[in-house]
Amino acid sequence: MYELGVVYRNITRADRAAADGLAALGSATVHEAMGRVGLLKPYMRPIYTGAQVSGTAVTVLLHPGDNWMMHVVAEQIREGDIVVAAITAECTDGYFGDLLATSFQARGARALIIDAGVRDVKTLTEMNFPVWSKAISSKGTIKATLGSVNTPVVCAGMLVTPGDVIVADDDGVVCVPSARALATLEAARKRESLEGEKRAKLAAGVLGLDMYKMREPLAAAGLKYMD
Amino acid sequence: MYELGVVYRNITRADRAAADGLAALGSATVHEAMGRVGLLKPYMRPIYTGAQVSGTAVTVLLHPGDNWMMHVVAEQIREGDIVVAAITAECTDGYFGDLLATSFQARGARALIIDAGVRDVKTLTEMNFPVWSKAISSKGTIKATLGSVNTPVVCAGMLVTPGDVIVADDDGVVCVPSARALATLEAARKRESLEGEKRAKLAAGVLGLDMYKMREPLAAAGLKYMD
Amino acid sequence: MYELGVVYRNITRADRAAADGLAALGSATVHEAMGRVGLLKPYMRPIYTGAQVSGTAVTVLLHPGDNWMMHVVAEQIREGDIVVAAITAECTDGYFGDLLATSFQARGARALIIDAGVRDVKTLTEMNFPVWSKAISSKGTIKATLGSVNTPVVCAGMLVTPGDVIVADDDGVVCVPSARALATLEAARKRESLEGEKRAKLAAGVLGLDMYKMREPLAAAGLKYMD
Amino acid sequence: MYELGVVYRNITRADRAAADGLAALGSATVHEAMGRVGLLKPYMRPIYTGAQVSGTAVTVLLHPGDNWMMHVVAEQIREGDIVVAAITAECTDGYFGDLLATSFQARGARALIIDAGVRDVKTLTEMNFPVWSKAISSKGTIKATLGSVNTPVVCAGMLVTPGDVIVADDDGVVCVPSARALATLEAARKRESLEGEKRAKLAAGVLGLDMYKMREPLAAAGLKYMD
Amino acid sequence: MYELGVVYRNITRADRAAADGLAALGSATVHEAMGRVGLLKPYMRPIYTGAQVSGTAVTVLLHPGDNWMMHVVAEQIREGDIVVAAITAECTDGYFGDLLATSFQARGARALIIDAGVRDVKTLTEMNFPVWSKAISSKGTIKATLGSVNTPVVCAGMLVTPGDVIVADDDGVVCVPSARALATLEAARKRESLEGEKRAKLAAGVLGLDMYKMREPLAAAGLKYMD
Amino acid sequence: MYELGVVYRNITRADRAAADGLAALGSATVHEAMGRVGLLKPYMRPIYTGAQVSGTAVTVLLHPGDNWMMHVVAEQIREGDIVVAAITAECTDGYFGDLLATSFQARGARALIIDAGVRDVKTLTEMNFPVWSKAISSKGTIKATLGSVNTPVVCAGMLVTPGDVIVADDDGVVCVPSARALATLEAARKRESLEGEKRAKLAAGVLGLDMYKMREPLAAAGLKYMD
Repeated sequence: MYELGVVYRNITRADRAAADGLAALGSATVHEAMGRVGLLKPYMRPIYTGAQVSGTAVTVLLHPGDNWMMHVVAEQIREGDIVVAAITAECTDGYFGDLLATSFQARGARALIIDAGVRDVKTLTEMNFPVWSKAISSKGTIKATLGSVNTPVVCAGMLVTPGDVIVADDDGVVCVPSARALATLEAARKRESLEGEKRAKLAAGVLGLDMYKMREPLAAAGLKYMD
Repeated sequence: MYELGVVYRNITRADRAAADGLAALGSATVHEAMGRVGLLKPYMRPIYTGAQVSGTAVTVLLHPGDNWMMHVVAEQIREGDIVVAAITAECTDGYFGDLLATSFQARGARALIIDAGVRDVKTLTEMNFPVWSKAISSKGTIKATLGSVNTPVVCAGMLVTPGDVIVADDDGVVCVPSARALATLEAARKRESLEGEKRAKLAAGVLGLDMYKMREPLAAAGLKYMD
Repeated sequence: MYELGVVYRNITRADRAAADGLAALGSATVHEAMGRVGLLKPYMRPIYTGAQVSGTAVTVLLHPGDNWMMHVVAEQIREGDIVVAAITAECTDGYFGDLLATSFQARGARALIIDAGVRDVKTLTEMNFPVWSKAISSKGTIKATLGSVNTPVVCAGMLVTPGDVIVADDDGVVCVPSARALATLEAARKRESLEGEKRAKLAAGVLGLDMYKMREPLAAAGLKYMD
Repeated sequence: MYELGVVYRNITRADRAAADGLAALGSATVHEAMGRVGLLKPYMRPIYTGAQVSGTAVTVLLHPGDNWMMHVVAEQIREGDIVVAAITAECTDGYFGDLLATSFQARGARALIIDAGVRDVKTLTEMNFPVWSKAISSKGTIKATLGSVNTPVVCAGMLVTPGDVIVADDDGVVCVPSARALATLEAARKRESLEGEKRAKLAAGVLGLDMYKMREPLAAAGLKYMD
Repeated sequence: MYELGVVYRNITRADRAAADGLAALGSATVHEAMGRVGLLKPYMRPIYTGAQVSGTAVTVLLHPGDNWMMHVVAEQIREGDIVVAAITAECTDGYFGDLLATSFQARGARALIIDAGVRDVKTLTEMNFPVWSKAISSKGTIKATLGSVNTPVVCAGMLVTPGDVIVADDDGVVCVPSARALATLEAARKRESLEGEKRAKLAAGVLGLDMYKMREPLAAAGLKYMD
Repeated sequence: MYELGVVYRNITRADRAAADGLAALGSATVHEAMGRVGLLKPYMRPIYTGAQVSGTAVTVLLHPGDNWMMHVVAEQIREGDIVVAAITAECTDGYFGDLLATSFQARGARALIIDAGVRDVKTLTEMNFPVWSKAISSKGTIKATLGSVNTPVVCAGMLVTPGDVIVADDDGVVCVPSARALATLEAARKRESLEGEKRAKLAAGVLGLDMYKMREPLAAAGLKYMD
C-alpha cells in the first residue's frame, strides 16, 4: 500500500503441495478451516462459473486507469502463481484482456484476482483463464505511472502478501498466509472428510437439530415452541 | 421483525393447488395479477438461471453472521414449502450451503429465499436446489443467538407472513398473501391466456399502438410527431 | 433530456456498413479505437452471455415506472436498429418483456439498451433478443406520461444521439457518433489486425515488456528491481 | 404492502404518554430496550441534526414519483402523529416540500419519515419540521395513482403498523409496536437510569473490563495477552 | 463526451439576467418550471449547507485521477460562471482544493459542480466557495492527460452544454438550457408567486385535498374510506 | 486480519512529535506528502465537521455486530492514541456510543476511526470526541466473540499497523507508517510552506497555467484552442 516504484523479484512462495492442494477443498471450506478469516469482499465475482483454482500469489499495485505494471508483473509469474491486483483507489476500468491473459497463461499463471474491471471476457472464457473481479468493463487503461510488484497489498479489503495462497471458486476468494498453508490444508481436509457422513444423514431426514445436538442449547437459550 | 426466541409450529398454508399452480405463470405475470404489489427488491437474484418455482412460505428470522435458526426452521418444513430467511441487519455472509440444502431438500423444501448470502453454489446447482439471494459468499456463520421461526418477516423489503405463496424465477421473487392466492392464480391465468393472441399479432408486425388503441390517448396527451 | 412529448420520425442513421461492421470488432476494441470515449457505465450488463451486436440507435426517453413510449418507439424501428432507452430518474422496474420484444424483433430491432430493468429474461433468451440493462425485475409499469422518441438522451451516463452506432457485447456497450462510424470501423480493424501477431508472440512467452519496449521508459520513470 | 386505494380513518394509536415519553430516551436506548429490534435501515438520515422526536405513526403508501396520497394522509393526521411514508419501489424523488410541511405541521404532525427523497430542506429546517429520508432531491412528483393510508407498510426495511410509536433522532429511526410502547418506555428509562453512574466511573478511568466484569469471560473464551 | 484535447474559447452564454435571477427561485422550483427535467442525479451534494447560486456553465471534461484540465478551464472562466466538471469514468478523487478555488474565485466563478471528489472542504467553506460533488476525498490527482474545455458534457447523468444556466442549492443541481433560460425564469417566478397564498391557507388548516380540489378525482380513481 | 484472540500490549508508537505535528497539516497535504498513498476509502466521514486530529494508532479487530473487544482495546489506549477499528465483514451497526467514548477519552484517546457504525452522535459531538465512520446507526451490538487488539488490520481498504500515525479531518483519514512519520511531517511542512505564496498569486489572478508553466506541456500533448 505504501511502496511505489519497486519490483521484488525474490519472494518466498508457500509450500507447493499446499498451494496446489487447497483448490480441491474450495473457498468456503478453506475459509472455515482458517477460523473464518481471509475472505476477500464478496463483490469479487468470477467472470464465468465453474472455475476452482488455488496457487501462490504474486501481487501488483496499480493506479486508477493505468495498467502499466501488469506488464511488469507478467515477468515475475512462475508456474502455479495467481496474480493479485490491487488499485490505489476505486476503479472499474478494464485493466486486463485477452492479450495479457495470453501472456500470463504462457508464464504459468492460473488466474487473476483484480479489485477493478476486466474485459474480453468471452475470449478469456474460451481460453479457460479465470478472473475474479469487481467489474467487467470495455474501458481500457493508460500506461503512465509506476506502481509496485510483489509488495503486500490490500485487495478487496484483505491483506495479501506475496507468496500467500489464493483459493478461488464460485463462492469467492480466500487468502491463506503462506505460513499457515499446510496447517490449513490439513484442517480443511479434516473438515471435508466429516461432511460425507453428515450429508448422508441429512439426506435420510435426520435433522441438524439432532445431529449437532442443538435442542438443549436452544432450550437453554430460551427458545420456545408454540402450537 | 419484533418477536425473537419463538417457533410457531402450526401455520396456515395457502391453498395447495394455488401454491403449486402459480409457478407456471411466473413472477412477472403474478406480480401484474396482484395489481403490481408483492415484489421483493430486485437485488434478489437466483444462483443459477432457469429455475421457476412456487410454494408456501415458512419463515426464519436470523441475526447477522448467525445461522443457528436455519436448523430450527428445517424441522418446520413440509413438502411444498419455500424457506424465506430475513436478517435483523444487512449481511452478506454465506448462511446456507450444501449440507443445509441436503436437509431442506430431504424435508421437502423447494427453494430458499434469503436476504443475505449463500455458498456452495456449485453444489447447490448440481442438486437442483434453487436459491434467490442478495449475495454469494464463502463466509460462514456462527450459532449463538436466537431468532424466530414462522413469524411475519420483512425480506428484501417485502412483508412475508408464514403460509403465503412465494413465486420465484429468473425475473425475481413475488409474495402472494395466502388469502389472495386463488384469486391471483385465476387472474394470472386469465392474463396469460390473452398473451398468445397478442404475441401472434405483434410477431406479424401489428403495432402495440394499434393493438392497444393507444394513438388517440397519446394524441390527447399531446404527443407530437415531427418529420 | 429536455424535450418531452415529441417523436422525430426522420433521423439520419449512420453509414449502414459501419453500423453493421462494428459488431465483429467488439466493444473493447471499438472503445479503444474511439480514443477511449463513448462507453456506457459498466453497470449495464447483458441478460445472457455471448450476444455481440451493433446497429443504429433509435432513442426513447421514459418516465420512472412508465413504459408508454416503448410502444411509440416500436413504430420508429427500422431493420438494423438498436433501441436505446433512457429514464428521467433512477428506476429498476421491468419496462420490457417478451411481448414488446416480439414487436421490436418483428420491426427489425437487434437489441435493447435500457438504463432500467427488464423482465421475461428466460423468454428473451430463448428468442435470442439481447438486452443490456441495469436490472432485472418483475415489476411492471404503467402507461400514463409522455416522454419522447428520437431526441438525444443520456443513457447510463453517455449521450446517445439518434442514428449513432451502438456496439454491445459481454464487455459492455459503446456509442459511436454517426459522423465517426466509418473512421472508427477503420481504426478498430487496424487495431485488430495487429493483435494476432502480438498474441502469437505473447503465447510464445515473449513479454509485453520487450514487445512494447517498456523497459526503458519504466527505468526512466524510476522503477527499481530488488532481489 | 398489498392493499391499494384504501384509507383507514380509525386507527388505534399507542398510549399517548408512552408515545410522547420515548423521545427523551433516544433511538439507541429505545432500540436496546426493545431487544435490538425495530430499527429502520441506517440509510435513513435526518435533514438537519439535533431533532429528537417521538409520536404515533400514520402511514402512507405511495408509488414511485407520485405523491398524490400525501394530501390524503394529511387529513388523517392528529396532534402528536408522525407520518411514515413507504414507496412501492425504490425512488429518490422529492415527494415532500415546504407546502406539504406547512399543512402537516398545521394538522399537528411532528415529523416525516420517508423511504424516498424530500426537498425544500432549507425551509423545512427553518420551520423546525424534521424529516428522516433516504435522499434529498429537487425532483418533483406527479399526482396520478392511488396508494393507501393507514395500512401496514414496510418502510426502510421495517414493518410499521398505524398507531405504532416512532422514535427518531440523529442516530436513526426506531418503530415500537403500540402494544409494547409502555413496556419499552419503562425498560428504556431503567436502562438510562443506570447510565449516569457508569459514565461517572468510566470518566474516572475505571475500565469497562472491570466495571462489567469481563476479564474472566474473556479469559475463558481464550483471550491471550502478549508483551 | 466524444471530443478530447480541445478548448472552445467562445461560447454563447445564456441571458445574464436569467442566469443571475434563477438562483433566488431555487432548484426545486426551477426544476418544476422546466417540466421536471434538467436535474443532475441526487447524489450530488453541497459541501456545506445554505449556499444558493446560479450562473452560466463553463464545462471541463477530465480523466479519472487527473485534474490537469482544471487549470485550463480556469482561464476560460468569466464573472458569473459556474464550472461544471465531468469525468470520463467513475472517480471519487479530490480534483479540487483551496488553491484552485482561489484561482476560480479570482476569475469570477461562483461555484463548482463536479461528478467526482473535492478536498480542503473546511477552507472552501471559510472562503464561501460552494461545491456540489459526488464525494469528499483527500486523494490528489496527477496532471498527465488531455481532456477538453467547453464541449458538451454529461455530468451526474445530465447533459450540460457550455453557456447553459446552472441552479444549485441544498436540494440539488439543475441545468437550464440557455435557450430556455428566460422562459424558465418567468415560469418559475409565476410558480413562486402563487405559493405564498397557498402556504397561508395550508397554515390555517385548509387541506390540499380541498385547496387543490382532489376529492373528486380521488373518488373517481376509486379511493375508498373505511371507518 | 488473520490473528484472533490476541492482545499485544507493547507496540512501538511513531515519533510523538511527528504524530502530534501532522494534524496541523491536514489529511490532503499529508496524503500528497506520502506520494498519494495511505488514504482510507472516502466513505469514511466525520460525525461532525471541523475536527482535525492526528495520533498514534491502536488497533482493534471486531466481528460483525459484536463490540466486546472495544472494552479490551480501551485498556491499551495511551495519551495521544487514536483507536482504529476494523470488522471481519461489512457491518453498519453502532459499535460505539457515549459510554465507550467517555472511557476512551478518560484513557487519552483523541478519536475513533471505525469501518462500521457509531451512535449517540449528538452526545459525542457535545463531548468533542470525533469519530470517522462508515455509518451512523442506533443498532447496538453483542459481546460474544473474540477479535484481537494491536494486530495489523485493514480498515476501509488500508492496512494500519499499531503505532502508525493517523491523520483525520473533514477531507478524510490517512495512515502514515510509523517509520515514515518524521519524513512525512517534513515533506508536508515543505509543501505547505510553498502554498501561501501560490495562493497569493492565484488570488491576484495569475493563472495556474502560467504559475506552473503548463502551457508548453499542454501544447506538446496536443491541446488545441478554438475560437
